[in-house]
Amino acid sequence: MLSGLGAAAAAGFYYYTKYNLPKVLALENKVKEGTASEREPGSYVDGLPVYSSGDLAKHADESTGVWVSYKSGVYDITHFIKSHPGGNKILLGAGVSVEPFWNLYAIHKQPNTLALLEEYRIGNLTKGEEADAMINMSDPYANDPQRHPVLTIRTKKPFNAETPTSLLVENFITPTEFFYVRHHFPVPDVDLSSGDYSLEIISDDEKKGLSLNLDQLKTAYASHSVTASLQCSGNRRSEMNRTKPTKGLEWAQGAMGNAVWKGVRLRDVLLDLGIKDSDENEHWHVEFEGLDIDPTSAPYAVSIPLSKAMDPRGDVILAYEMNGETLTRDHGFPLRVVVPGTTGARWVKWLTRIEVARNESQSHWQQNDYKSFNPSSDWDKVDFSTAPAIQEMPVTSVVCDPQDGETVELKDGKLKLKGYAWSGGGRGVVRVDISLDSGKTWHVAELLDPVKLSRQWAWTRWQANLPVTAKETEVWVRAVDASYNTQPEGMEHIWNMRGVLAVGYHKIKVSLKAD
Amino acid sequence: MLSGLGAAAAAGFYYYTKYNLPKVLALENKVKEGTASEREPGSYVDGLPVYSSGDLAKHADESTGVWVSYKSGVYDITHFIKSHPGGNKILLGAGVSVEPFWNLYAIHKQPNTLALLEEYRIGNLTKGEEADAMINMSDPYANDPQRHPVLTIRTKKPFNAETPTSLLVENFITPTEFFYVRHHFPVPDVDLSSGDYSLEIISDDEKKGLSLNLDQLKTAYASHSVTASLQCSGNRRSEMNRTKPTKGLEWAQGAMGNAVWKGVRLRDVLLDLGIKDSDENEHWHVEFEGLDIDPTSAPYAVSIPLSKAMDPRGDVILAYEMNGETLTRDHGFPLRVVVPGTTGARWVKWLTRIEVARNESQSHWQQNDYKSFNPSSDWDKVDFSTAPAIQEMPVTSVVCDPQDGETVELKDGKLKLKGYAWSGGGRGVVRVDISLDSGKTWHVAELLDPVKLSRQWAWTRWQANLPVTAKETEVWVRAVDASYNTQPEGMEHIWNMRGVLAVGYHKIKVSLKAD
Repeated sequence: MLSGLGAAAAAGFYYYTKYNLPKVLALENKVKEGTASEREPGSYVDGLPVYSSGDLAKHADESTGVWVSYKSGVYDITHFIKSHPGGNKILLGAGVSVEPFWNLYAIHKQPNTLALLEEYRIGNLTKGEEADAMINMSDPYANDPQRHPVLTIRTKKPFNAETPTSLLVENFITPTEFFYVRHHFPVPDVDLSSGDYSLEIISDDEKKGLSLNLDQLKTAYASHSVTASLQCSGNRRSEMNRTKPTKGLEWAQGAMGNAVWKGVRLRDVLLDLGIKDSDENEHWHVEFEGLDIDPTSAPYAVSIPLSKAMDPRGDVILAYEMNGETLTRDHGFPLRVVVPGTTGARWVKWLTRIEVARNESQSHWQQNDYKSFNPSSDWDKVDFSTAPAIQEMPVTSVVCDPQDGETVELKDGKLKLKGYAWSGGGRGVVRVDISLDSGKTWHVAELLDPVKLSRQWAWTRWQANLPVTAKETEVWVRAVDASYNTQPEGMEHIWNMRGVLAVGYHKIKVSLKAD
Repeated sequence: MLSGLGAAAAAGFYYYTKYNLPKVLALENKVKEGTASEREPGSYVDGLPVYSSGDLAKHADESTGVWVSYKSGVYDITHFIKSHPGGNKILLGAGVSVEPFWNLYAIHKQPNTLALLEEYRIGNLTKGEEADAMINMSDPYANDPQRHPVLTIRTKKPFNAETPTSLLVENFITPTEFFYVRHHFPVPDVDLSSGDYSLEIISDDEKKGLSLNLDQLKTAYASHSVTASLQCSGNRRSEMNRTKPTKGLEWAQGAMGNAVWKGVRLRDVLLDLGIKDSDENEHWHVEFEGLDIDPTSAPYAVSIPLSKAMDPRGDVILAYEMNGETLTRDHGFPLRVVVPGTTGARWVKWLTRIEVARNESQSHWQQNDYKSFNPSSDWDKVDFSTAPAIQEMPVTSVVCDPQDGETVELKDGKLKLKGYAWSGGGRGVVRVDISLDSGKTWHVAELLDPVKLSRQWAWTRWQANLPVTAKETEVWVRAVDASYNTQPEGMEHIWNMRGVLAVGYHKIKVSLKAD
């Protein structure tokens, strides 16, 4: 049923156990050639001690110190572990080369990550052993689907790419092939004809379970369609990075789209399982597991509150269609969860298991990612348990056309602006305001798509046509939702080290040509 | 059943129809003595034309121009009508003295309102007729209940008063006698023993109705208790007024409190009426009418979405108890609506009628008040139909102790801060941040009361104890709710002419004494 990933996971364990040579004590060494920031990461540095892969294998936990290799470099990362954005998954690479893991978690292969690693440099790997790391390691991404070239790629492996915003605003419904893609791992490849695929549904409380294949699911429950916008928690992160760098994909404003999703109501399935509408279980959670797995074979998994899943007006569905077509592999074929009003991280793709439980998911993605902190938190002192997992998202708005830095020709002395606005929790956008003078005066934009005050899962696009005489101007946009929440003015006060929820006013500078 | 108010309403009509003398054409006149802003409002101004109350009566609509009198002054307010915050209720006073009305809507008797009126001065009232305005006019507020002297009074008639914030933060549950009071009119005085009181419940769709007295209501439905904070839409207006004056009561931060409310679920009553949980009616409204009536005998009335009323987790109740005691007259005896997570304007007191309808209430308070606009809107150009009535409120937070301008003695070099935070829609407050350096660094406050992420109707109090060495500091507080919405940094960008939803960061300056 799956291809590529099983091999990768096996390779991870292979390198974790392959080397088992006598212990060698590490000497404290100084790098003698160039500084960490000047060197080509992983290059051989004359004058540093040389360690074999066997030496490395002896430093695989905190009692001995945690060493890793990258190309020809050996690194003692013991003191970095607690700062690792991915939590203690870093220990998978303890005592071995990080390369097979980074092949999977390709986000690491960025200059700043490599430079950071180089600061922990203690030695060189025995010459000739560098290539061993990749022996038996096939490319787990080789079977990923083809994508439309218009997407702006942020990382190729795993594949993460967004829609150019000028294209986004053209359609209320984002065409599937232009829809942003956000993956953590290689894309599972489900062959329904094999009969291997099933959805398991269990309840901790009821000690009951259901197991359904896709046909059974479609037959057993009425279909329900929902028009809902999907947004990555990290959408607009690149704007936040201007305040101070964060860790994550460098999204512009296109990690968002709007689609028609068709599937069955999760509520109906859970009622069948014996779950009740009740005050007693409302703070329970429903965990979703995907077929996408990390190198330890742990699946991507997260959870949402049971109250959202059971709310007849919550519109949570298990979707098998997107925009009138069978789901594509990139969007979760054969089944994905659609949690309207909630961050994309909870819309689990390639859904294979649902569990109703008293507590929320204990997965990495629920506990140690997709959370926000105040701007004075950093990786050294953050305690992820103090913040709730992002579920409903705050109100946001974006100018899609023109784009930041563009030169625009005025028409009748007016600047035409177009964009989108959205808020979480089904709270419709009731007003979009534009300022061309840094907030001194505000113009109300026209909303282009119908908006309900509640149960409004789709975005609304907006436009404005404003007279302007200056040769350049900064455009500010901000939205107000049905609860009259609005956006913070800047990114400074909502800055967080993970770069999520970048919902400050969108501010762009444009040059203007009179007509 | 009611006392005081009936007489007042009658008096209103009395003055509306009393004068019916021959038409006199108004001459355009200039005020010859003093400027409008220098004069004692309503004083006799030598040199101005003199008009009789009969002349006045001939100017009672826009075709003739709208004249009013106040003490000895005659005013042509034709051009002010569209700017009147109370809408066309101003026409009730057309052609007569405004004094009986202002006795009821006492908010008008403020220096700036009187100065504004004086700008429309065109003449004097015939000497000796000034007192006629108040003939037969008893004080409609004479029967208002006694209040606790600790309340800070904003207006006496109608009575509007708030809790000192240092007292607010002492208790999770605000004692009833300290709870803020916000009235539009005199307080109805219901005598249950008379048998006159009943609650009428009707549905436009079902053409059905129920009529229940209080005992029948209590007997027919199970009781339900809810701990919920009640906040006026205008809470913190005084802070917004520092940006630019708005129109409304000059609330500090005490137009908010938290109480335990007990009553019956509105959902249960509506189910009895035949209302169904349905996608078809979810955008319908439920209108509530109180026994408090304006001079035209129109009751205070507003509505909420039917979806909120029918939501099993919405906790809308018809309450007959507050904090374990029978409701007091000031808080709506014998019955008030409790709409958790929603602005106080919808929590109708002295409830006497409920109507399920396809559209929201067409009352003044639903259509032309309790709405917000962008800061560039003003009374001259505002179109109230463009904004939704405030229902769920945005996230807010306040420093209650110390207060702005206070001198505080440090303990162990630390400044102790206490306050409250809350958000609408049941979204729990997940973090309160404090900055002592204008947002450069942020400290996380301790939350003192338990918080659920959803269905959290009560506020949470917070405290922080921060080292400080300066002799004075500005304290900023802001909260983040479960949808990660946060507050705007200042009041400037959310300023609105009505002064509602003043939810910018709370900023106070304190002087510090080292210990």
